[in-house]
Amino acid sequence: MRMLYHHTLLADARKVRLALGEKRLEFMEQSIEPWRRDDDLLVLNPAGKIPVLVDEDGITVCGANTICEYLDEVYAEPPLLGRTPAARAEARRLADWFDKNFHDEVTRHLAGEKLTRRVSENAAPDSRALRAGRQNIHTHLQYIAWLTERRSWLAGDHVTIADISAAANISLVDYCGDVPWGDHPLAKEWYVRFKSRPCIRPILRDVIDNIPPARIYDDLDF
Amino acid sequence: MRMLYHHTLLADARKVRLALGEKRLEFMEQSIEPWRRDDDLLVLNPAGKIPVLVDEDGITVCGANTICEYLDEVYAEPPLLGRTPAARAEARRLADWFDKNFHDEVTRHLAGEKLTRRVSENAAPDSRALRAGRQNIHTHLQYIAWLTERRSWLAGDHVTIADISAAANISLVDYCGDVPWGDHPLAKEWYVRFKSRPCIRPILRDVIDNIPPARIYDDLDF
Repeated sequence: MRMLYHHTLLADARKVRLALGEKRLEFMEQSIEPWRRDDDLLVLNPAGKIPVLVDEDGITVCGANTICEYLDEVYAEPPLLGRTPAARAEARRLADWFDKNFHDEVTRHLAGEKLTRRVSENAAPDSRALRAGRQNIHTHLQYIAWLTERRSWLAGDHVTIADISAAANISLVDYCGDVPWGDHPLAKEWYVRFKSRPCIRPILRDVIDNIPPARIYDDLDF
Repeated sequence: MRMLYHHTLLADARKVRLALGEKRLEFMEQSIEPWRRDDDLLVLNPAGKIPVLVDEDGITVCGANTICEYLDEVYAEPPLLGRTPAARAEARRLADWFDKNFHDEVTRHLAGEKLTRRVSENAAPDSRALRAGRQNIHTHLQYIAWLTERRSWLAGDHVTIADISAAANISLVDYCGDVPWGDHPLAKEWYVRFKSRPCIRPILRDVIDNIPPARIYDDLDF
């Protein structure tokens, strides 16, 4: 059986769970705390990082992007990148936007401070980081609105890795109740549609340690 | 004509130049200082980042990995990722290692401090960063040795994006004269072989502002 090593607090690892879900691929899972050294993990991935996927034939694939590219090559339908080189370049560009820009400007400041810091260090969030995250998120939600005014999904007519990267990050911030949905109806409309997809259901059932999610976190029609 | 927007101080941008060189694809180039806002660049890439490639048919591709994946899809020979999903997963894993781990632990501390900081801020390097970079580089050169004892190139029998990512980073550190080649003969043997490839020649002719390269930087048989 396929095995995924991951952790619910990592947006990158959520991204792989969503990609596996969109492909309707079953997998067993093992949660690994990313802030602890894990010698078994080092055997699988010399970089010592999750996510790591061990596929049914024993092939070990390390890192979120590498896993998503691998899944799209081996399990072609439905395609998560797109059907032409230009479409794939657009999906990868936007996935990168959410994996890096959104993550560094928003997810890290909000979920990183309110969830990861509390769980890993039992420490209080840094208030400057929270302020930065709450300020930065608006531009990104406006960008989602701009894109979805022109396309059904972020990178085109179908769900791609761009939507998956965005939802992986936004779901973590939404867990904290820090997405200002009221100010961004078009971004909300996109997330309502994404939340109705079966791939995200397991993630909406996650509970992080003793920190309860915001009321709307698992509400499909918030 | 194909146009690449890049800067010699960015390892990511060197990576794209090497990939274009391996594919024997001609291109015009425009250097853009990554630390300045550039409104023309924002039109091409809303993230405002380089590298950006505008291909001959006008398709705009943003970001080093997205460009390399695009090039390998559109200009298939020679393949820079590998011929099977498992081989491609290994090439992408190792490229990621050098793009992220080597970059953050070594390139940023050495080339980032001695070159980028000087050129962009006219400031002196941080001595703690230099110490960290000089210490961290050994593990990575040992890893290159470990890999090339088992394979011709880092990810297998052929040059892949893994060698390209490694050389993109190492060439910047070598510009500073900070690669302890004497302690790592197997890593040196790999780099001597890579340096003999035509793709790297333009990079070995780069001169960064008024900072001369280390004596061995462009020496093919150092």
